[in-house]
Amino acid sequence: MRSCETGEDGDACRLPVSTGALVRGPAPATRAPPAPPAMASPSEAAAEGPPRPLAAPARSLTLDGVRDALVRQEDTIVFCLIERARFPRNAAAYEPSFSGHGTSLAEFFVRRSEETDAEVGRYQSLEELPIFPGSLPTSLVPASSLPQVLHPKSASVNVNKDIWEMYFHKLLPLFTVKGDDGNYGATLESDLACLQALSRRIHCGRYVAEVKFRDAPQDYTPLILAKDRDALMKLLTFEAVEESVKKRVAKKAMVFGQNVTLDDKNSEEDNTKRKIDPKVVSRLYGDWVMPLTKLVEVEYLLQRLS
Amino acid sequence: MRSCETGEDGDACRLPVSTGALVRGPAPATRAPPAPPAMASPSEAAAEGPPRPLAAPARSLTLDGVRDALVRQEDTIVFCLIERARFPRNAAAYEPSFSGHGTSLAEFFVRRSEETDAEVGRYQSLEELPIFPGSLPTSLVPASSLPQVLHPKSASVNVNKDIWEMYFHKLLPLFTVKGDDGNYGATLESDLACLQALSRRIHCGRYVAEVKFRDAPQDYTPLILAKDRDALMKLLTFEAVEESVKKRVAKKAMVFGQNVTLDDKNSEEDNTKRKIDPKVVSRLYGDWVMPLTKLVEVEYLLQRLS
Repeated sequence: MRSCETGEDGDACRLPVSTGALVRGPAPATRAPPAPPAMASPSEAAAEGPPRPLAAPARSLTLDGVRDALVRQEDTIVFCLIERARFPRNAAAYEPSFSGHGTSLAEFFVRRSEETDAEVGRYQSLEELPIFPGSLPTSLVPASSLPQVLHPKSASVNVNKDIWEMYFHKLLPLFTVKGDDGNYGATLESDLACLQALSRRIHCGRYVAEVKFRDAPQDYTPLILAKDRDALMKLLTFEAVEESVKKRVAKKAMVFGQNVTLDDKNSEEDNTKRKIDPKVVSRLYGDWVMPLTKLVEVEYLLQRLS
Repeated sequence: MRSCETGEDGDACRLPVSTGALVRGPAPATRAPPAPPAMASPSEAAAEGPPRPLAAPARSLTLDGVRDALVRQEDTIVFCLIERARFPRNAAAYEPSFSGHGTSLAEFFVRRSEETDAEVGRYQSLEELPIFPGSLPTSLVPASSLPQVLHPKSASVNVNKDIWEMYFHKLLPLFTVKGDDGNYGATLESDLACLQALSRRIHCGRYVAEVKFRDAPQDYTPLILAKDRDALMKLLTFEAVEESVKKRVAKKAMVFGQNVTLDDKNSEEDNTKRKIDPKVVSRLYGDWVMPLTKLVEVEYLLQRLS
């Protein structure tokens, strides 16, 4: 058995191409389009660009595929944090009853955005879980036939409430400066991107747990039947691998957060110019992302035999 | 007179800290918050993080401030393109009358998202211009007192329709692979981030034009009065500087698009593993971003004396 929190220590876990989705399926059926309107029909005929290799669709769940997704999502998370750090804290956007509307502006924005996301079918992918799942509108996109690789009863594990609390109460103060520039709209857009990236990564724990369970049901079944959370957590924990992940995400923060110039020497080594502190990203993973991922794994496994 | 498309060729243009907004002001007044609800009130008291230096608010428009914003926005644009490239083309999301709703799913998503953005006050900042400005809802956020640095008549220059056409018809086919994985929700979110980043950058042309006009009104006034577009365009064009910008954004694509590992040697030099082709980003700037920015500058200047 191998851990999906693997670092650079296993060739078997390497995939050559980073891709967007863990599980892919055929596109949903759409109606034949009528004559194109002015601003809505980019032409496939214009696709003169150089073809790039597309990873073969990962229709079945593999450890390689899950690990590739986790590593690629590190980049997304670091990009999102760097973008949020452009703005100061802007704490007024998180105050409850902003302008007397009963919730914070952040909660208002996220709820509205998730309604729109639901309408365009975002949550038809099991990889995406809403933060406020109650009473979302139905999708305008016909249901796709993505292969169902998760155990149906376990797939609904959702720790987005914990991620919300962690992000706003613990993480945000670590990588934003105090202050208020009034740019709440763009700030909240950046917050939502961070929340969605963190949620996607942490809920990948369901796929990690599924693939590990399939690899070694004999190891997990007795612990699941005994509801032994501690033993499951121990079985899912590889400290050396977690240390590698923390080092890698810190390195990504250093590389992606540098100020690139046309000088030969970039500022990669210059701490004072970085857009985000690599230590904060390492701590984010060590203190919250990996523990919450393992919490998702344990919760998933506990319902795996239901 | 200096160009804001400057590369590494002028110390006077350098600013030490990258910031979010070109123009900042005091936060809008908000009502006193009542007792916090469960998921909406991150505490300022948790702000134990290491303080980072905050750039002094740029209440007045300076060439340094505009140039700093343009350089920082290059990073945002490259991050956004890399994130969009995670997904295949997903052309069905751009087909007109998707599912019979009269517009593409992309247009539906962007219109809805801009309505939410308007409600949380995004467009109170003149740096942000909606793609579909007609009949947006009013903001829930009290109007802030951001300093008005643009000429009121010129500030409304909006080339978002051109950006939309360029993005979907010309750019997207150059950096996404053909295919459809059905993840339209996450794909459209990435498209919107790209469009907003490109729009913000290109409409910075209004600030570039304003600061250049203030620096040398004697150069611009006769050309504006003569409505001489060609001469204005010539006055705003610095080919050597534009070449520097193209090289720098290609380098950013190379640095930010590499696969970072814990090996000493990263894949920065390995073209096959990059998440986006640096040549595409260079072409994006050379063929579209800088020409559209200068178009905004010319249009702005033509109304500068109205």
